[in-house]
Amino acid sequence: MEKKIGIGIIGASGYGAGELLRLLVNHPDVDVVSLVSRTQSPITDLHPHLLDFYDLKCEPELNIDAIKNYEQQIVFSALPHGVSAKTISALLANYNQPNFHIIDLSGDFRLSNPEQHSKFYPESPLCEDIRSKFCYGLPELVGTSTISKAQHISNPGCYATACILSVAPLIKKYRGSVFFNACSGTSGAGRNPTQTTHHPEMSTNITAYKVLQHRHEPEIQQEIGSELPCSFVPHLIPIARGIYVTTHIELNEFVALENIVELYKEFYANKRFIRLRSTPPQLEHVVGSNFCDISIEVRDRRVIVMCAIDNLVKGMAGQAIQNMNLICGLKEDTALSFPPSGLI
Amino acid sequence: MEKKIGIGIIGASGYGAGELLRLLVNHPDVDVVSLVSRTQSPITDLHPHLLDFYDLKCEPELNIDAIKNYEQQIVFSALPHGVSAKTISALLANYNQPNFHIIDLSGDFRLSNPEQHSKFYPESPLCEDIRSKFCYGLPELVGTSTISKAQHISNPGCYATACILSVAPLIKKYRGSVFFNACSGTSGAGRNPTQTTHHPEMSTNITAYKVLQHRHEPEIQQEIGSELPCSFVPHLIPIARGIYVTTHIELNEFVALENIVELYKEFYANKRFIRLRSTPPQLEHVVGSNFCDISIEVRDRRVIVMCAIDNLVKGMAGQAIQNMNLICGLKEDTALSFPPSGLI
Amino acid sequence: MEKKIGIGIIGASGYGAGELLRLLVNHPDVDVVSLVSRTQSPITDLHPHLLDFYDLKCEPELNIDAIKNYEQQIVFSALPHGVSAKTISALLANYNQPNFHIIDLSGDFRLSNPEQHSKFYPESPLCEDIRSKFCYGLPELVGTSTISKAQHISNPGCYATACILSVAPLIKKYRGSVFFNACSGTSGAGRNPTQTTHHPEMSTNITAYKVLQHRHEPEIQQEIGSELPCSFVPHLIPIARGIYVTTHIELNEFVALENIVELYKEFYANKRFIRLRSTPPQLEHVVGSNFCDISIEVRDRRVIVMCAIDNLVKGMAGQAIQNMNLICGLKEDTALSFPPSGLI
Amino acid sequence: MEKKIGIGIIGASGYGAGELLRLLVNHPDVDVVSLVSRTQSPITDLHPHLLDFYDLKCEPELNIDAIKNYEQQIVFSALPHGVSAKTISALLANYNQPNFHIIDLSGDFRLSNPEQHSKFYPESPLCEDIRSKFCYGLPELVGTSTISKAQHISNPGCYATACILSVAPLIKKYRGSVFFNACSGTSGAGRNPTQTTHHPEMSTNITAYKVLQHRHEPEIQQEIGSELPCSFVPHLIPIARGIYVTTHIELNEFVALENIVELYKEFYANKRFIRLRSTPPQLEHVVGSNFCDISIEVRDRRVIVMCAIDNLVKGMAGQAIQNMNLICGLKEDTALSFPPSGLI
Repeated sequence: MEKKIGIGIIGASGYGAGELLRLLVNHPDVDVVSLVSRTQSPITDLHPHLLDFYDLKCEPELNIDAIKNYEQQIVFSALPHGVSAKTISALLANYNQPNFHIIDLSGDFRLSNPEQHSKFYPESPLCEDIRSKFCYGLPELVGTSTISKAQHISNPGCYATACILSVAPLIKKYRGSVFFNACSGTSGAGRNPTQTTHHPEMSTNITAYKVLQHRHEPEIQQEIGSELPCSFVPHLIPIARGIYVTTHIELNEFVALENIVELYKEFYANKRFIRLRSTPPQLEHVVGSNFCDISIEVRDRRVIVMCAIDNLVKGMAGQAIQNMNLICGLKEDTALSFPPSGLI
Repeated sequence: MEKKIGIGIIGASGYGAGELLRLLVNHPDVDVVSLVSRTQSPITDLHPHLLDFYDLKCEPELNIDAIKNYEQQIVFSALPHGVSAKTISALLANYNQPNFHIIDLSGDFRLSNPEQHSKFYPESPLCEDIRSKFCYGLPELVGTSTISKAQHISNPGCYATACILSVAPLIKKYRGSVFFNACSGTSGAGRNPTQTTHHPEMSTNITAYKVLQHRHEPEIQQEIGSELPCSFVPHLIPIARGIYVTTHIELNEFVALENIVELYKEFYANKRFIRLRSTPPQLEHVVGSNFCDISIEVRDRRVIVMCAIDNLVKGMAGQAIQNMNLICGLKEDTALSFPPSGLI
Repeated sequence: MEKKIGIGIIGASGYGAGELLRLLVNHPDVDVVSLVSRTQSPITDLHPHLLDFYDLKCEPELNIDAIKNYEQQIVFSALPHGVSAKTISALLANYNQPNFHIIDLSGDFRLSNPEQHSKFYPESPLCEDIRSKFCYGLPELVGTSTISKAQHISNPGCYATACILSVAPLIKKYRGSVFFNACSGTSGAGRNPTQTTHHPEMSTNITAYKVLQHRHEPEIQQEIGSELPCSFVPHLIPIARGIYVTTHIELNEFVALENIVELYKEFYANKRFIRLRSTPPQLEHVVGSNFCDISIEVRDRRVIVMCAIDNLVKGMAGQAIQNMNLICGLKEDTALSFPPSGLI
Repeated sequence: MEKKIGIGIIGASGYGAGELLRLLVNHPDVDVVSLVSRTQSPITDLHPHLLDFYDLKCEPELNIDAIKNYEQQIVFSALPHGVSAKTISALLANYNQPNFHIIDLSGDFRLSNPEQHSKFYPESPLCEDIRSKFCYGLPELVGTSTISKAQHISNPGCYATACILSVAPLIKKYRGSVFFNACSGTSGAGRNPTQTTHHPEMSTNITAYKVLQHRHEPEIQQEIGSELPCSFVPHLIPIARGIYVTTHIELNEFVALENIVELYKEFYANKRFIRLRSTPPQLEHVVGSNFCDISIEVRDRRVIVMCAIDNLVKGMAGQAIQNMNLICGLKEDTALSFPPSGLI
């Protein structure tokens, strides 16, 4: 039995899988052994930038036998909402071992409250038997030890990651109103072409969408708790990658900037991927990497928190690998310890 | 004496002047007779896209004699803050007629409170003798009849235009907290190259700046009044033109969406340049034009208003021409009645 | 009978129609009376930036009766290749008057040689009976008097317009090899979303496509003649609008720069939309307008010509209106005499 | 004495140095020990995306003593043309050891012919005493064994890299005319803000510049030889990173596509960073990486070669590290064996 981690990826044609594969190239402890996609194409046809790095062909079904040869077994699901839950459910019904872990990049296991889940993900079955096995995989919030003991992981939403990390240190300590204003690059909409993401109509455009109706809002509220009632407005901006969230908070009491900064420093002490800055973060200082840059301003009872992440890395594939590392007992930043590209 | 409007532009090398000249090309009632810039270049060297439309050369001083030949006389100042007040002050000391109007695109006469002015524009003299002659030139807020009787105009800030128009119908009727989250194209920073607006560092970037410290915030607060205490966070996004403001309001009472929409419809009835939409505005649906597109969403006591303008048109040169039209007794939309470019 | 021009547009949902409607807003001599699209939507739902400018709804069939009320009658076809020829053919079979003119924006009537047509447009019928009625509508090449006498117009391709205008003055006078290297904004690919024009994959991308196989190459060769054998390589670049063509020519003899510039000046004397420049044209100096900016450099027998146009204006809808103006005996630049937006 | 490579970088504030530092983060065999910049800032103030990866402060002078502690000693010069030669000359006058190697990213030592050098780099001294010690560092052209024996390296120009690699397999075998049409991202212009690279004027622009007058043309001609006389036209396009070169070649004889492809395959066999593709390369498939993607089309005697690289990696810092690896006896792709970012 191989000492390494055997990896399968379901939904190999999308951006999530492409980014997982990009990041895993230099992971010293993994073998990618099975890729699943209806296309059955060579993986480098689907992701031509990866040419010369992978020599695998997609299959219609997960090759679980190949994965079984490894001491540690990870399957990433990069399928759409609904399809992911169904596929995972069927998979676990057939194969279920303590060393076999699913990391689901979809939203199917993010909402723990069944009513909330059914309201916001009507296309997704509840899967009651396995729902509780999925841990919400935001290591900086739930703690690395919690992740390392998890059986399966529900990987957080990209917006939710940035929003929650923006206010996590305030939870339980303060009360107030929270307004998340988020801007996202278009890759967050996935790989299927749509009118909204047609280049000529988006190349110098900006628009709000799903105002007060985005699925990540209940996810955020679930994690930050009712003391900080929130609303969430997402926008598309004309870049491919990156999320920039500006959070406007009105606290019930005045707290000086230095005290808030201190609180954030303590909360994020030793968190490898959080960088507190004294000036507003810039998207180009995080894009390509797993970093989350944060800065804070205060006036009276109003607190402004700015936060930048790469939606495909800390907001998706990078965080998934971070979770995998923790589950497999590796250093949290294995294969993720590289700087952003800077200019992009 | 010419029946037309004789026009001079001071500060002819910047984006403000370039846009005034672009928009005035097809204005039937004006002659542009004097352009002022230290460069003394042909104007089409400074603004090469205007080639074949103007045959003027910039001069070091305003040619007031040429302007005097016209029944109506307009000077646009597109100078930087501080320089504009000094130049206008000297000009009016020498020449002051009822039919001679200054339209100042700088911020020098926007704040009526002297202390506020000195705090936020320390480089700008107070000019107490002429300060009160400047009317805040936001026609949809102060009324077209007020503008038409004004001697001089202080043209609103680009951000301030979008923010104020986003909440103007609520003023005096409701109380609550207001959070303006604004995204601007880089032309708002002016024509001088800087590190922040260096293309390689901005082309796929986004960053907040002057958080809670931007000069447009006191301007906005001055106009919307103390019942709606506000904060303002501007961001640069990687486009050249356009401002998108998302306003998060927490009212002290619940008001249904239909009632708020009705209020906006009444307030903006017959306002040529305001277009209320039922879905979030898109920047590409206003850019190039003098339109201001607005949509609204409501949940509980929270109201979200989205607003898109072209910062160089409704946020600057277009609004200045709108003010000129009103002062000169012309139709408000003369030379401004054309649609945005759509795709940009 | 109305003295104006009655206008119908078939294929109203695409970029071509949207741009025609944008440009026609301020045309003093036209009434747009019939819009055809399967969608049967209000036209401002299809082109939301035109809100408040048109109050028409699309119909499934052309309302020829409405058009018949006008002294001059123009139908623009903005349909896809093949569909356009079939629709026009059926239309002309039913209604055919000297004052009724079709301006076809598709490629269906561009190639006069039947074999060439069938090779490059296999989906398009030959329509032998009406083919010869279509005049190639590049006024600066074929002459305004030719256009004004034409029954119908085949509007040139966007690339072809820029390429032909780049070398037209050399035709018949010089021999040599011509290499067209063209970069286009993505709106040239039309309004239907595709993987290639999906924003996340195009936002900072550049790629050549249809290398030596693009349909505009035979169109260009047809117009410039066999003395200047050419090849053509198009590229997509990450902007929405604009075409920039750099033409590398190796002449059979040396000609000094000044002589070549003189030749261009003569050829384009009194051509309203051609602007010869002494430095390389910039896309932002033409976008939004009907201008074609050109500059030339020479070394030894090598001549480099640079040319910039807006693919949707001079490359499509603007040129179509220019042709309409000529056919209808109006000034060539009616509704087209405005400068580009400059910053975009 | 440390077994590793001790590294100094002169000119640490520019893009070249930023990119060297980004790429060296995960190089297992190097210590970056001295950074030189007039700013004397912490390096992560100059390159904020590198926060948490370096803890060095820039110094006004190279700390040669720190470098001397290492068995292998590399100094990268990322200074501007002219300044670089002067600084290197002074440095080598003081310290000159067989294991001490300069890798110069400027153009100061690229042209071997003194007359050519003085013509194209008039601001740069000839430095006759050390000129011949510099090897032209394009490994795929001059051979890895040549590089590994070099004392110093003159790192090729970004455009020159892409152009030369586009035609290298044809050299000596074929004769013909070559036309290089190149598009570059704006980072190629360096970090100092200019009007040309001011974001509002470049964000959707394209322009040719230095037509037939760019310094990389003589560099290219020097390497490809007089059998293939060439001309070179560079363009700026609105992206930050990347070069796309389309080469139009008219050979003196017809050669079938398959034969040319075979020639390229042989020439680039075992070249880690060259990827031959059967469809046109896309910029997003190389950006961020050291790869050079190439494809070829043929018709009659005309050959079209398309080539994409990242101007800051294969066109600058990545190639410099590739050269360092070879000089130091390491695997050529150490620290460079990672895929491009894909979406950017």
